[in-house]
Amino acid sequence: MAVFTPVSLDDLSGWITQFPLGKALSIRGISSGIENSNFFINTDSGEYVLTLFEKLEAEQLPFYLELMRHLAERGILVPAPVANRDGKILHQLNGKPAAIVSKLAGESQLAPQPVHCAELGAMLACMHMAAEDFPIRQPNLRGLEWWLQTTPTVLPYLPPELQQLLSSEVKFQQDFAAGQVYAELPLGPVHADLFRNNAMFVGENLTGIFDFYFAGCDTWLFDLAVTVNDWCVDLDSGALDLPRLQAMLDAYRAVRPFTAAEQQAWQPMLRAAALRFWLSRLYDFYMPRAAEMLTPHDPGHFERILRLRISEAVPALA
Amino acid sequence: MAVFTPVSLDDLSGWITQFPLGKALSIRGISSGIENSNFFINTDSGEYVLTLFEKLEAEQLPFYLELMRHLAERGILVPAPVANRDGKILHQLNGKPAAIVSKLAGESQLAPQPVHCAELGAMLACMHMAAEDFPIRQPNLRGLEWWLQTTPTVLPYLPPELQQLLSSEVKFQQDFAAGQVYAELPLGPVHADLFRNNAMFVGENLTGIFDFYFAGCDTWLFDLAVTVNDWCVDLDSGALDLPRLQAMLDAYRAVRPFTAAEQQAWQPMLRAAALRFWLSRLYDFYMPRAAEMLTPHDPGHFERILRLRISEAVPALA
Repeated sequence: MAVFTPVSLDDLSGWITQFPLGKALSIRGISSGIENSNFFINTDSGEYVLTLFEKLEAEQLPFYLELMRHLAERGILVPAPVANRDGKILHQLNGKPAAIVSKLAGESQLAPQPVHCAELGAMLACMHMAAEDFPIRQPNLRGLEWWLQTTPTVLPYLPPELQQLLSSEVKFQQDFAAGQVYAELPLGPVHADLFRNNAMFVGENLTGIFDFYFAGCDTWLFDLAVTVNDWCVDLDSGALDLPRLQAMLDAYRAVRPFTAAEQQAWQPMLRAAALRFWLSRLYDFYMPRAAEMLTPHDPGHFERILRLRISEAVPALA
Repeated sequence: MAVFTPVSLDDLSGWITQFPLGKALSIRGISSGIENSNFFINTDSGEYVLTLFEKLEAEQLPFYLELMRHLAERGILVPAPVANRDGKILHQLNGKPAAIVSKLAGESQLAPQPVHCAELGAMLACMHMAAEDFPIRQPNLRGLEWWLQTTPTVLPYLPPELQQLLSSEVKFQQDFAAGQVYAELPLGPVHADLFRNNAMFVGENLTGIFDFYFAGCDTWLFDLAVTVNDWCVDLDSGALDLPRLQAMLDAYRAVRPFTAAEQQAWQPMLRAAALRFWLSRLYDFYMPRAAEMLTPHDPGHFERILRLRISEAVPALA
């Protein structure tokens, strides 16, 4: 279970008095998440999620929490940080930065159908536009700079064929990011980790998206590509599932039409999104921290996705 | 149906572009509510509630909407007003003040059990405390002053026996409100209309309370008494249902213990809460506006409740 810092009901009971939530009634660790310790907490006023930030730097946290507040205030269905009596949303518990956010109703849809992908695509476009005027800027900390820095660390562990794939793809992405098309892509705060387990549905209705702790400023197209590479692929083969892909793109496009630059950048961006997760999984696989030992992800999944995004024709965005 | 100002999908489609909610997909009038026109709207980013304010004065609206925002920011489960790109939550549509708020999950529990009353009691106490530092002050516009002003208007329509009951109760409440015990009651922003149809549950879990358009600053005990007089009575006879009453009071008290003054004021306050709705229903019955014609409430219900709160022993608050 991914709880690194235990929190007892006793710990919680005193701490929670700064919020107008009444008494803490119960606390229960959540077994997902590799970056934070998460808990469902029950209070007199309802159920919430408590997060203790294990690795994120204190100066990065306002970006994530204020972004969630900004989006929630604009009606985007995301967990809303709970302010204490002084209006503060970032706190300290058991020596760690901590926050309480509202709990989304529903469950993750791990076998999404086109209707789910359409819901998500539309909300993603709305989210991009709602975040456009968010005043805090923080880069995607798992972007190109991180790829360039991390690649030399993992390369020595890889067999020659994978060394070749990784090196050449990073080079390709470096060139792509330096080009004119990339420079024209619209950008802003993005989720950057919108996998199937980070959205909730009640039936076919999307009730919200969560886990903004990889969010950062990046191109909107990158965010869409990350999302497509998880929601619209066959998880065994990594191949794109065209009905789901079409549903997501149609719904996104209906809210915000794609620019000419985005249409040109689509296939390179799908590769970039695959590279980002292949690389982080390689890194976690070969350089495991205590946390990742508990929830190993197979790097091969995104290696397959990357190979397919390189080799296969990708339907045009237009 | 209580929609006084029609809003078409066409009307909505242009107007909604100021919000980051994507396109308007559908709109459907809501048949409850006698003060506003309410609609469920579906947009690319989910389902929301649109309200057009029909009677409330423009200068009163910030109190209601900002109170909801204040409570939502503090984790109290209430509809959160949706801000447009300029951060504004109060708008104009089809010539009326208008707002979009988030939609609560679940359904009203019209036959509440003690477990529902306990959920509501705890949340009500949390809400009172969360609203304590809300900076805008606005009186309960259906308080003593309104009773004194409205009573002479309806008296001529009543048979002698009811004239006597109304006159003497208003006099009793005037004296009560002028006394020392009343002066010591804790107060702040209260909901003031928390009937069964203004709360949502999923199973036994309260998912939120809504319709803050009668909210105002009043004693917390008045708010509790209004709530008890609806949730904890037999709707046929108006008699208190002791298991539900005990569940609500225990849950409220566990969050915020009652003061000595509140314990003394309990029975007079239950009478005040009954008087408030008897009087408004008498007023709407004899002085109907177009809206009330559509949703007539029997004034006799709160007449019975008032009589019982006067004549029957009420379990102590302690």
